[in-house]
Amino acid sequence: MFKFEILHQSTQSSARVGRITTPHGVIDTPNYVPVGTNGILKAVDHTMLNQHDCQLMFCNTYHLALHPGADVIAEAGGIHKFSGRKGPIITDSGGFQVFSLAYGSVASELKSQGTKQTDNAVIKIDESGVRFRSYRDGREIHLTPESSIQLQKKIGADIIIPFDELPPFHCKAVQLKKAFARTHRWQQRSLTEHQKAVNNQAIYGVVHGGLDKQLRQKSCQLLTDMRFDGYAIGGSLGKQRSDLFDVLDYCKPSLPPESAKHLLGIADMPSISEGVKYGIDTFDSCYPTRAARHSVVFVGDEKIKLSSGKYKRDFQPIDPNCQCWTCKNSTRAFVHHLFKAHEPSALTLASIHNVQAMMDKMKRIRKQIMNNEI
Amino acid sequence: MFKFEILHQSTQSSARVGRITTPHGVIDTPNYVPVGTNGILKAVDHTMLNQHDCQLMFCNTYHLALHPGADVIAEAGGIHKFSGRKGPIITDSGGFQVFSLAYGSVASELKSQGTKQTDNAVIKIDESGVRFRSYRDGREIHLTPESSIQLQKKIGADIIIPFDELPPFHCKAVQLKKAFARTHRWQQRSLTEHQKAVNNQAIYGVVHGGLDKQLRQKSCQLLTDMRFDGYAIGGSLGKQRSDLFDVLDYCKPSLPPESAKHLLGIADMPSISEGVKYGIDTFDSCYPTRAARHSVVFVGDEKIKLSSGKYKRDFQPIDPNCQCWTCKNSTRAFVHHLFKAHEPSALTLASIHNVQAMMDKMKRIRKQIMNNEI
Repeated sequence: MFKFEILHQSTQSSARVGRITTPHGVIDTPNYVPVGTNGILKAVDHTMLNQHDCQLMFCNTYHLALHPGADVIAEAGGIHKFSGRKGPIITDSGGFQVFSLAYGSVASELKSQGTKQTDNAVIKIDESGVRFRSYRDGREIHLTPESSIQLQKKIGADIIIPFDELPPFHCKAVQLKKAFARTHRWQQRSLTEHQKAVNNQAIYGVVHGGLDKQLRQKSCQLLTDMRFDGYAIGGSLGKQRSDLFDVLDYCKPSLPPESAKHLLGIADMPSISEGVKYGIDTFDSCYPTRAARHSVVFVGDEKIKLSSGKYKRDFQPIDPNCQCWTCKNSTRAFVHHLFKAHEPSALTLASIHNVQAMMDKMKRIRKQIMNNEI
Repeated sequence: MFKFEILHQSTQSSARVGRITTPHGVIDTPNYVPVGTNGILKAVDHTMLNQHDCQLMFCNTYHLALHPGADVIAEAGGIHKFSGRKGPIITDSGGFQVFSLAYGSVASELKSQGTKQTDNAVIKIDESGVRFRSYRDGREIHLTPESSIQLQKKIGADIIIPFDELPPFHCKAVQLKKAFARTHRWQQRSLTEHQKAVNNQAIYGVVHGGLDKQLRQKSCQLLTDMRFDGYAIGGSLGKQRSDLFDVLDYCKPSLPPESAKHLLGIADMPSISEGVKYGIDTFDSCYPTRAARHSVVFVGDEKIKLSSGKYKRDFQPIDPNCQCWTCKNSTRAFVHHLFKAHEPSALTLASIHNVQAMMDKMKRIRKQIMNNEI
């Protein structure tokens, strides 16, 4: 059922316009993938966003496994029936969150020296997988390549991701190589588990290797040999944007050009504009909705902070060129007021706008690629 | 422009089905009036609720005057343009909140002995009005009958309310009588100020007199003589529901039967079911949306607490008979999950349902009155 087609290949770069078909609908590419950690975008109900305007939603297996639990979702008939979302969904493996428990978040890692911030949540990491404690009830959970895939089968997203090891950013070469070898063994085990019952789900292999060109290219080769349905660029993507582009440059020639490619966790405007040139088809990030909840909204390629006093009397829409629900029905002054008055709708209205702004950006990019301008 | 018509008078009681016409649309009566303190229902954007399903919204002048300020709203062209709401709006005078600052909230008063809980917010109450400090910026504000009306002119709701004195529940007869006299002087001053520039706004007089039959009836007489456009039952409405019904019973014969009547701040199901029999046409309360934010949702005339573990696997809509956005698109189990995961959409989905449940209740009541069953 899963299918990726390239509709137009730019003559200017590796950018392409394509279409991913899944059991729950199509995704025009390149596209932005908003994050709905718990099965819903933060502060934005599914039905508020035109389905057409949010073609793929990214959910987190780690969070869904802790609550409501994969069994509850399976009982409901899968994540689509459970959440009421009709469009395509992708889940990650839970690995990213579990390794964040062990090493701290990427952001805090970049700021600190990568010291462990474990709070004893992670009990043991070994060849079998990761043992950790649920922050909800203290229950011990053993996340392995097999159990991650089983969880993702129960959740039932359209696209799933193998369980991988995310080594800390500040790690020695020897540690990186060890993690590198294990992450590919884990991905092979994940794939084998997946193939026992494909159930109309696609699986994307995750390219690792940090900032090391040879490791990145070797990873591409290993995953291509395993024959995943698509590929996601993951692992440590560096400290600055140029590191990311280096990684994308290493991977570009080493992955099958006809396969769908996802960039994990990065979707800022400059990274998208540049990333599509390396043939990236989808980008996920929780930044647009998180920024919105802090009153930062997109106006074209710029951002403004709506809670600032200067918007108190600004009676124009957030973006006069935007056709979203928020811009059609309210003004900067009103949303400013809602933030100042701590009204929950402030989060909703700002988030709807930012997601729409991302979707509009992607539409413009697809048009530019069609015109060979990118 | 303001008009109230009685379409059917029940043969069983003083209940009637009617229609209020305002510059921004009609309100079928009896009806429930949700509270949008800051110009929007908490967690529910205007456009989410079918306008037809929320015919009148109650906003608080006190809160709007403190933020964004009546001048900003006037600059935007009034509360409808500022907030984007197209349907009718009613504002109160700010008196209720200011006197709550002085005497504590009604609820805390009922529990305590009515001791002052002022925090020095209220500086002085005298014949001119009330001086208090803004909790936002410490600025001193002098709220008087004239200034309250001027604020409400700037805000520009369809229906406004005169500035009245709300005496504490635990007050001596002599204090009640003093407040009683002053509240009617204040209402006359409010009316005079209003009449200087009616601007298509209607004004409802507020009946006072606590639980004293003679005072209530005298209040009705005084206000009727002043010739308000409608009447609101306010002041202390007692400690238990039977006190409220006594008050409604005192007022019923003393107010013009052909006028619209509002019950201030009370809209629980039993009070509505009984209140319509005394000819009450509209009821406002923030309870349905506040309860929703605490995961308490209405199922017919019952309530359930969705955050309870027993709804974890309950895959039916909140109310299978409800046609609201929430019930059409999600289940108890999903909204339970959203509450447990602290997702902001939980507040939105539960609130939409509770408002719709109130509207459905009112529709049933109107039908029962049409059939002379009430």
